[in-house]
Amino acid sequence: MTGIGNAMLDVITQDSKEVFRELGLVKASMALIGEDQLERFYNAMGPTIQMSGGSVANSIAGVAALGGTCGYIGKVANDEFGERFTHDLASLGVELDLAIARSDEGATGRCHVFITDDAQRTMATYLGASNQLRVEDVKEKLISRSEITYVEGYLFDLAPAKEAIRKVVNFAHEHDSMVALSLSDMFCVDRHRRDFLELVTGDVDVLLANEAEILALFQVPTLERAFEALEELGVLAAITRGPQGADVATMTGVVRVPAHEVEHVIDQNGAGDMFASGFLYGLALGADPVEAAQLGSLCAGEIITHLGARPEGDLEELALEAGLL
Amino acid sequence: MTGIGNAMLDVITQDSKEVFRELGLVKASMALIGEDQLERFYNAMGPTIQMSGGSVANSIAGVAALGGTCGYIGKVANDEFGERFTHDLASLGVELDLAIARSDEGATGRCHVFITDDAQRTMATYLGASNQLRVEDVKEKLISRSEITYVEGYLFDLAPAKEAIRKVVNFAHEHDSMVALSLSDMFCVDRHRRDFLELVTGDVDVLLANEAEILALFQVPTLERAFEALEELGVLAAITRGPQGADVATMTGVVRVPAHEVEHVIDQNGAGDMFASGFLYGLALGADPVEAAQLGSLCAGEIITHLGARPEGDLEELALEAGLL
Repeated sequence: MTGIGNAMLDVITQDSKEVFRELGLVKASMALIGEDQLERFYNAMGPTIQMSGGSVANSIAGVAALGGTCGYIGKVANDEFGERFTHDLASLGVELDLAIARSDEGATGRCHVFITDDAQRTMATYLGASNQLRVEDVKEKLISRSEITYVEGYLFDLAPAKEAIRKVVNFAHEHDSMVALSLSDMFCVDRHRRDFLELVTGDVDVLLANEAEILALFQVPTLERAFEALEELGVLAAITRGPQGADVATMTGVVRVPAHEVEHVIDQNGAGDMFASGFLYGLALGADPVEAAQLGSLCAGEIITHLGARPEGDLEELALEAGLL
Repeated sequence: MTGIGNAMLDVITQDSKEVFRELGLVKASMALIGEDQLERFYNAMGPTIQMSGGSVANSIAGVAALGGTCGYIGKVANDEFGERFTHDLASLGVELDLAIARSDEGATGRCHVFITDDAQRTMATYLGASNQLRVEDVKEKLISRSEITYVEGYLFDLAPAKEAIRKVVNFAHEHDSMVALSLSDMFCVDRHRRDFLELVTGDVDVLLANEAEILALFQVPTLERAFEALEELGVLAAITRGPQGADVATMTGVVRVPAHEVEHVIDQNGAGDMFASGFLYGLALGADPVEAAQLGSLCAGEIITHLGARPEGDLEELALEAGLL
């Protein structure tokens, strides 16, 4: 599996007082901020933990933790954050093809994550060098080797992304790699609905979204209507629904896969990304969509028990113990 | 309470394969490394989480999380790590006096922490700018306001520290501030036994150590012998003993305070530092040593349930619920 996405460093704080509201952020969503706002946002945060992030990069780290071979395409700056992002993927200890380009402009992207006591995360993202991702950064070799090519919706926030995404999709079609798309965020769907719908119609084989995102995509009031739209398009979809689990919409109907039970939910950041790891890796191994979603639920269950969106435990061992690998 | 110690950034990795052995590290201890070894150590690590650390700085963050007023004296470099270290203390949201000096030499200190599956931590520390801590960085104002002045044993690894520690102790005596000392690490005790014994004889009111450290200090084979030595010196001591709790040695005998029970121990990093937070803050509030140690155990119990040595939960709320504040 190869992923292409925004290369980000996560700057995480626990925010029991919801100070993010004073910064104009909407709870549980992601907003984009400019370089001139970085200092103000950082200063408003409490003590932080910093680690690599980026939605699709998290999913790739998850696949690696499951023992899968994978690749990643992204762009960082020539700075310390960029080196750390690369180190954190390169040191996963599996076969990993990295095509992480270096930009001489700006700083490496970073995402300010506010975790509230209800385990929700609210994010303010500075795209930075991610925004310099260009069509020439897309490496055919990585895609040609992958059963699945995974694209993140956030990429549409990058100015020159459309051309790069088109190239990714074309390479994937040429090499019989399935195209998976994450809708990323409901506001992101609002910003780029037309582009998303165009991509989903004909190019996308597997769609990953949560409830709010899929409703926003089709501008429908209920999941039932969204499932009808998906069936019409012939797209396999997994709709994550937090503690209610995930709905897997196939050509033969919708199946609910329960969430993996955990004792204490600390931080839902990364739950969708890790679900994608298990779901897509399961599909790549030839599992049926419901089995694949069970693996997704297991991975999502691991990530929400601790701070941060990269796995801490041995996902492969967990999956083997659960009989899902 | 005012602390003086090594200002450190923690670079934490989970190391189920104990690769730290290949780097020549001894499990569960701390080794010093030079600037020329930084790259090799970092490259040997898996994906990392980065956050502020430093033993006494962690304890100060713990006191702040308990709602206490505190101060900190340390030294960072003029770099991004130094800014983060300062931000993470300054943003604790309590009255906090910082005397964090900036050095133009070297980089901010950092500690490479390897967490193994048994929740032990093994550390390789680059002192960096900490090593530039000078007698002129010791601010009398902070010490004059503090019931307790807390010194970390690791400071003796700094070349010019003796003079600075002497000044700290003199200020503390002048202003009726109790002097507390952490023995930090058994190898650190071996390196500086004579200095430690000199300080403990006459200058130190409260001693914090674990079992290995206190045995190393007095070069005795049993805790009983160590308690005898402490009684002779007239020093109040709390000896932390992991899951067995802590032994509080007062002039009237030794009392065992049980460890706070937790479900899953993830990372023992910071357990001693957080015990010190509760124990010293309790003493500063006028609690008797056994009650203070109970508060210490509660704080240590919080820190070992997650990665990293700075508190994530609301320690003040926890302590209020437990009736310890």
